[in-house]
Amino acid sequence: MRGTVLYGPRDVRSEKRPDPTIVEPTDAIIRLAATCVCGSDLWPYRGIDQVAEPMPMGHEYVGIVEEVGSEVRQIKPGQFVVGSFFASDNTCEICRSGYQSSCVHRQPGAPTGAQAEYARIPFVDTSAYKVPESLTDEQVLFLADILPTSFEVGVLNGRVKPGDVVAIVGAGPIGLAAVLTAKLFTPAKIVVLDVADKRLELAKSFGADVTINNGTEDAVARIMELTGGLGADVAIEAVGVPATFELCTELVRPGGTVANVGVHGHPVTLHLEKLWIRGVTMTTGLVDTFSTPTLLKLIAQGRLDGTPFTTHRFKLSEAMDAYDVFGAAAETNALKVVLEGEKAPLKPKERLAAAVA
Amino acid sequence: MRGTVLYGPRDVRSEKRPDPTIVEPTDAIIRLAATCVCGSDLWPYRGIDQVAEPMPMGHEYVGIVEEVGSEVRQIKPGQFVVGSFFASDNTCEICRSGYQSSCVHRQPGAPTGAQAEYARIPFVDTSAYKVPESLTDEQVLFLADILPTSFEVGVLNGRVKPGDVVAIVGAGPIGLAAVLTAKLFTPAKIVVLDVADKRLELAKSFGADVTINNGTEDAVARIMELTGGLGADVAIEAVGVPATFELCTELVRPGGTVANVGVHGHPVTLHLEKLWIRGVTMTTGLVDTFSTPTLLKLIAQGRLDGTPFTTHRFKLSEAMDAYDVFGAAAETNALKVVLEGEKAPLKPKERLAAAVA
Amino acid sequence: MRGTVLYGPRDVRSEKRPDPTIVEPTDAIIRLAATCVCGSDLWPYRGIDQVAEPMPMGHEYVGIVEEVGSEVRQIKPGQFVVGSFFASDNTCEICRSGYQSSCVHRQPGAPTGAQAEYARIPFVDTSAYKVPESLTDEQVLFLADILPTSFEVGVLNGRVKPGDVVAIVGAGPIGLAAVLTAKLFTPAKIVVLDVADKRLELAKSFGADVTINNGTEDAVARIMELTGGLGADVAIEAVGVPATFELCTELVRPGGTVANVGVHGHPVTLHLEKLWIRGVTMTTGLVDTFSTPTLLKLIAQGRLDGTPFTTHRFKLSEAMDAYDVFGAAAETNALKVVLEGEKAPLKPKERLAAAVA
Amino acid sequence: MRGTVLYGPRDVRSEKRPDPTIVEPTDAIIRLAATCVCGSDLWPYRGIDQVAEPMPMGHEYVGIVEEVGSEVRQIKPGQFVVGSFFASDNTCEICRSGYQSSCVHRQPGAPTGAQAEYARIPFVDTSAYKVPESLTDEQVLFLADILPTSFEVGVLNGRVKPGDVVAIVGAGPIGLAAVLTAKLFTPAKIVVLDVADKRLELAKSFGADVTINNGTEDAVARIMELTGGLGADVAIEAVGVPATFELCTELVRPGGTVANVGVHGHPVTLHLEKLWIRGVTMTTGLVDTFSTPTLLKLIAQGRLDGTPFTTHRFKLSEAMDAYDVFGAAAETNALKVVLEGEKAPLKPKERLAAAVA
Repeated sequence: MRGTVLYGPRDVRSEKRPDPTIVEPTDAIIRLAATCVCGSDLWPYRGIDQVAEPMPMGHEYVGIVEEVGSEVRQIKPGQFVVGSFFASDNTCEICRSGYQSSCVHRQPGAPTGAQAEYARIPFVDTSAYKVPESLTDEQVLFLADILPTSFEVGVLNGRVKPGDVVAIVGAGPIGLAAVLTAKLFTPAKIVVLDVADKRLELAKSFGADVTINNGTEDAVARIMELTGGLGADVAIEAVGVPATFELCTELVRPGGTVANVGVHGHPVTLHLEKLWIRGVTMTTGLVDTFSTPTLLKLIAQGRLDGTPFTTHRFKLSEAMDAYDVFGAAAETNALKVVLEGEKAPLKPKERLAAAVA
Repeated sequence: MRGTVLYGPRDVRSEKRPDPTIVEPTDAIIRLAATCVCGSDLWPYRGIDQVAEPMPMGHEYVGIVEEVGSEVRQIKPGQFVVGSFFASDNTCEICRSGYQSSCVHRQPGAPTGAQAEYARIPFVDTSAYKVPESLTDEQVLFLADILPTSFEVGVLNGRVKPGDVVAIVGAGPIGLAAVLTAKLFTPAKIVVLDVADKRLELAKSFGADVTINNGTEDAVARIMELTGGLGADVAIEAVGVPATFELCTELVRPGGTVANVGVHGHPVTLHLEKLWIRGVTMTTGLVDTFSTPTLLKLIAQGRLDGTPFTTHRFKLSEAMDAYDVFGAAAETNALKVVLEGEKAPLKPKERLAAAVA
Repeated sequence: MRGTVLYGPRDVRSEKRPDPTIVEPTDAIIRLAATCVCGSDLWPYRGIDQVAEPMPMGHEYVGIVEEVGSEVRQIKPGQFVVGSFFASDNTCEICRSGYQSSCVHRQPGAPTGAQAEYARIPFVDTSAYKVPESLTDEQVLFLADILPTSFEVGVLNGRVKPGDVVAIVGAGPIGLAAVLTAKLFTPAKIVVLDVADKRLELAKSFGADVTINNGTEDAVARIMELTGGLGADVAIEAVGVPATFELCTELVRPGGTVANVGVHGHPVTLHLEKLWIRGVTMTTGLVDTFSTPTLLKLIAQGRLDGTPFTTHRFKLSEAMDAYDVFGAAAETNALKVVLEGEKAPLKPKERLAAAVA
Repeated sequence: MRGTVLYGPRDVRSEKRPDPTIVEPTDAIIRLAATCVCGSDLWPYRGIDQVAEPMPMGHEYVGIVEEVGSEVRQIKPGQFVVGSFFASDNTCEICRSGYQSSCVHRQPGAPTGAQAEYARIPFVDTSAYKVPESLTDEQVLFLADILPTSFEVGVLNGRVKPGDVVAIVGAGPIGLAAVLTAKLFTPAKIVVLDVADKRLELAKSFGADVTINNGTEDAVARIMELTGGLGADVAIEAVGVPATFELCTELVRPGGTVANVGVHGHPVTLHLEKLWIRGVTMTTGLVDTFSTPTLLKLIAQGRLDGTPFTTHRFKLSEAMDAYDVFGAAAETNALKVVLEGEKAPLKPKERLAAAVA
C-alpha cells in the first residue's frame, strides 16, 4: 500500500509500504478515507523532535473498518469510524477515574501511520467511534483531535456557562475549535486574542464577537473595558508559550478560570503574589475523548460544523506538498490540510456496498 | 477602654483608647470576650509592612453584641457572636457570584482594633455569626479565620473526597486546620509535610496519618511510594513560598488538585512544560466565610474541635507578651495565642443575664 | 392613579386608586412602563381562588424607579428596572442556602398591584434588577417571571447539556420559555409534546426540533424511536397535571432527569415499582431568580429574545379586555398580554430625561 | 462440588453439583471463601418470586481466583477478590454514561450460584475487585452489595455534606450501611427511623445520633423540632414501601434531597400539590459499583468497618439453617448471615501458597 514516512527534517515521502496486519487481538485494520496533518506532526518535520529511523506519520483519521481482532466486541467490519488522539484500554486506575489520557497502558504514538491507505489501530473498541453513514468525511474528521481537545480541555475545564465572557488567546486551529465549542454554552461574548490580524478575521468568521490584537493593543485594558473592570469569566490558552499563559492570568476575573490547552515547552512565571487572593482556578489537560459521542450527535444534528477547518486537500501521493503547505501556515493560511484516500472517497452507498461485499 | 495599638516594629502597646461608637447604620459595637493574634498581624509587627501612624490591632474575635446600628436586621444586642476575616455587604456582582472576599465594597482592614475591650464591627449582619450560648469562647474563636480559611480554600477548593490521599504542605496553624477539616471528608490518608519535626509531631496529634520532613527526606519519592506511583489526589499548600508550591505540583497525581492557601509574596515557577499534559487543577483564594455556619454546627455537635490550637492565653494588658510569644513560634511552640477580655470571660448564664440587663 | 382591581370572578376593573407611598425603608415606588397578566392571576379571576375583598392585581413589571426608601442601597431613582416573581430579603438560612423562593421573610403576594401607573415594591434591592436603557420594555419584561422560571426550574434543575435530547411536555408560555432557554445549552434535539396542534406549531417557531401530539400519538413510543430505545435525557414538565408528570417519568432514560415546573393541585402516582431501579432524578422548585442577571446579559447581547411572547397589547384602561383575551387563550392564541403604561412608553432618551428632571 | 439450590418455597438444599467451567472468554472460576444470603434471595425463598426449576443461589461473595478465560486482562489466578451486585461489560452507551446497572448487556441474575464451593463469574474484569491479602473475608464481604449500594444510591445520590442532618428511614442492613457510609461526610446529625425499637438500638451502635420510632412517635414533628422547623437536609429511604417514601418527602427541608434505596413493589402517592414549590430533589437507582475501590481503600485504612453486620456464620452444608435464620430476622436479629467455604477460610499466607501451588 501507499503510506507517508518521515525520513528527516522536511523529508516526507509518500512511498510503498507493507500492508498492516492484526497484531494484538484488540486491533483493527482501517482503510483510511481521509487523514490530517496535526500540529504535533510538525515537530519531527521541523527537526525539533529528532527522528532516529524512518517514521510512519499520521494519527487523525476517518475510515472504514476492514478487519478486527478476535477480542474486538463493539467495532465491526464495514463500519465508518473516526479515531481518537490516543489509544488506551480503559482498565487502569487512572483511566477508571476519568483520565484515559494518562492511561498506564497507553501506547505511545498510537495510532501511527494513519496517513496511508490502511492502518493498524490498537484498542479499537475504546479508541474509535462509529459514525453515521450519512455524514461526510470532513464533517467528522476533526473529531479525531481538535474538536474534543478544545471542548474538553478548554471549554469544559474552563466551565464556560451561558452569559459568560470567554477570552480565547490564540486563533490557530485549537483556538478556533474553542470558539466553535464554547458557543455550545451560549456565552454572552467570545473575545479572541492573537497577534496576526488575518487570524483574527478568521476568528470572527468562526463566531468571535470581539477580537483583540495583543501585539498592538493593550489586551488587558480592552478586556477590563469590555467587562466593567471585572475581567473575563474564562480564559482559554491556545498557544503554548509563557507570555500567553501569563496574559490569561491577568485578564481573568476574581473567581474565574484559566484553562490551558496549549502544548508548553518552557516553564511559566506564575504571579502567585497577585493571584493567591483572587480565587482563580487554573487547569491543564490532554483530551480524554469522553466528549466525542456528544460532539458527534451535535454534528449529526447540524448543531456543530467543523468543515470550515479544511483549507487544503491533497492526494495521499502529495503528502510532501501537504506538509509544506501546513508547515508554512502563516503564508498559506492553512488551518487543516486533508489527505484523501488514494481513490476518491466513496459515497455513503458505495461504502455500504463495499462493506457488505 | 483598653486596646492594643502598634506604634512601630515590635512596639505593641496596651493602652487607654476612646470607646468605639456606631458610625454607619450597619455597624455594631461588640464587647470582646476573646481575640487572637493572626499571622497577618505579624507583618506590621515585624516591620515588613510599614505603619505610618499608630494602628489599632486585631480582627479575630468572639464577643457579645452591645449595640447595633439602625439598619442592622439579623444581629441583636446580647447575642454571642464570632467574627469573619472581612466585612462585605454582599450586594456587588462579585459578592453575588460567591466571592465576597473580593467584594468591591470591602472595607480594607475591617474589622480592626478587635484586640480591645470593645470594637466597632462594620456590616455586622453579613460578617458576624450568632453562636450558641452553650459553647465556650475557645470552641468558636477559630471560626474567625483559620478554620473556614483552611476548609474553603484548602479542602473544598481541593475537592477532598472519601478515600483520597491528601498531602498538606506546612504544619502551622493553617496546615493543621486543613488536617482537622480535611478529616470531615474521611480521606484514606492525610500526609503532612514540614521541615520542623516538632510541627510534624503536632500534626500527628491533630490527625495526620503520615508525616514527611521535606527538609531531610525525598518528599516526592515518599508520596509516590505511598500511592503506588500515582501521586496524591489533593495537595494543599499552607506555607506561602515558591518551593512549597512547586513541591505541591510535583507530588499531585494526574487529574489531581493543588489548592493554594498560603499567602505568597513572590512569583512561582510553574512547570507547564510538564504539567500541561497531566490534567492538574490549581486553585487560589481567600476565605469567603460561606462555610462558617456549617463548621459551627459541627462544633456544636462535637464533630470538630479547634480548642487544641490555643497554646497560650494572656490578659488584654499583656498584649506585648502575646505578640512576642506568637512572633517567636519556632521557640515557644505557639499555635494561637488568645487575649482574654479584661475581666474573666463570663459564664454562659452570666452572659445571658448581662444581655438582658 | 389608575390601577387594576379584581372584585370577584371575571370582574376586573380599571379604576382610580390612591398613589402608593414608601412604607418600609427597603421599599421603592416604581412608575410602570409595562406589566403582564400572569397565569397565576387567572386563579382568582376564574374564581378558583376566592377573593374576600377587592384585590389589586399584577406582579410582572418593568418600570422606572421614582423614589426609594432610606435603606435602599443598590437601586437608584431614575433607573429602568425589571421585577422578580417574589421579594425576599436574602438573610434567612433558607435564602442563604440558595432557596430565596422559600425565604421565611417572604412577603406573600408581593409585589402586588403592579398592573397600575405606580406600585410599591418591597425589598427592592434584592428583588429588582437594573436594565440597560438601550433595551425595550418587551425585551426585558419576561425576565419578571417565565424566562428565569423555565431556565432555573426546568433547564438548570434538569441539567440540560450539549447533545442531550430534551422533552418538554406542555407548549404554553412556560413550556415555550423552556424551549428558548434549553437552547442556551445546545441540546441535540428539543422535542415538545402538547395536545393542541396549534401550540405545537408555535413550539416549532420557538425552536422545537420535533413535536408530538400526545393526545393522538403514542408519545412514549415516538420518544423511544427518536432515541434508539433509550429515552430522553431530560424531561421538563410544564403543565401541572398528574398525567403529564407521569408521562415525563415514562419517557426519560435510565439515569435521566425529570424537572417539574408545572404548578400542581393534585397528588401524582409515582411508579416507584418501575422507577426504583432506573437511576432517575426528579426535581421540583420555584424560581429563585439567581439567573436573572445572566439572562439579562444574554438578552442585551442578542443571544436570547423573548419578544415573540407578546401576542396582545392593551392600554391600562383596557385591563378587563386583557384578562378576557388571556383567559381565553385557547381561542385567542394569547401567549402573554401586555398592559402599557397610560401614556405610550417613553423612548430611552425621554426616559433618561424624565429621570434627570 | 457442594452448592446451594432452591427447589421451591422454603426448600433450600445443600447438595452435590457439577463443578463450574469457563464458558465465555471473559469468565473466571472463583473458589469461594465466604458468601452471604441477600435480601433479594428471600423473594424466591418466600415464594414471592416463582421458581420454575431448581435454582442455584447466591451472588455476594469473596474468594480466590482459580482460573480465568482467555480475554481476561486484569484479574489473575490466585488473587483474592470481592464480587459486585451485577456483571456488565462496560461498553454500551448507558454503561459509558455511568449507569452500568442499566447495561444493555447485563446478564440477568449473574453471578448466580455463589453459595457454593466454586462459581463461574461472568465479565470478571469489570465485576470483581482485587482485595489486599491482609484483609479478612468479613472485612470485605459487604462490598459485594450493601456498602456500595447504600453509599452510591443513598449517600452520594442524597448529596450528604458535612454539617447536614441526615434522616435514614429503615434500620435494616441497607439503612445501617447508609449510617456507616453517611458518616464518611461527617453530617452534624444522623437520625434513624424505624418501627422496631430493637433495630433502633442497633442503629445507635452503628452511629446514629438520634433514633425515632415512627410507629409510636410523630416522626415529622420530631424532625422539625431537631432542625428548627426546617426539615432534614437529606432523607434516605431504606425500606421500600409507599408509607416510608412519603414520610421522606414530608420530613425533608425545602431544597433538600430524598434518595430512594428501597426496592419497591407498589406505586407511591407523590404529593406534588405540596412539593412542586419546595425545591426538592428525589433520586432512585441501583448500585453501579463505581465506589467499590474507594470503599475498599477506606476499609484497608481502618476508616470503615462492616464486620458488625455479620450476626451469624454457617457452614456451606448448613445453607437451610442460614436461610431460616435470615428469613426470620425479626426474631433472630440477623443482619447478615455468612456461609463459609467448606473448609475453614485459609489464612492469608496459606491463601498465597495455594495460589502459587
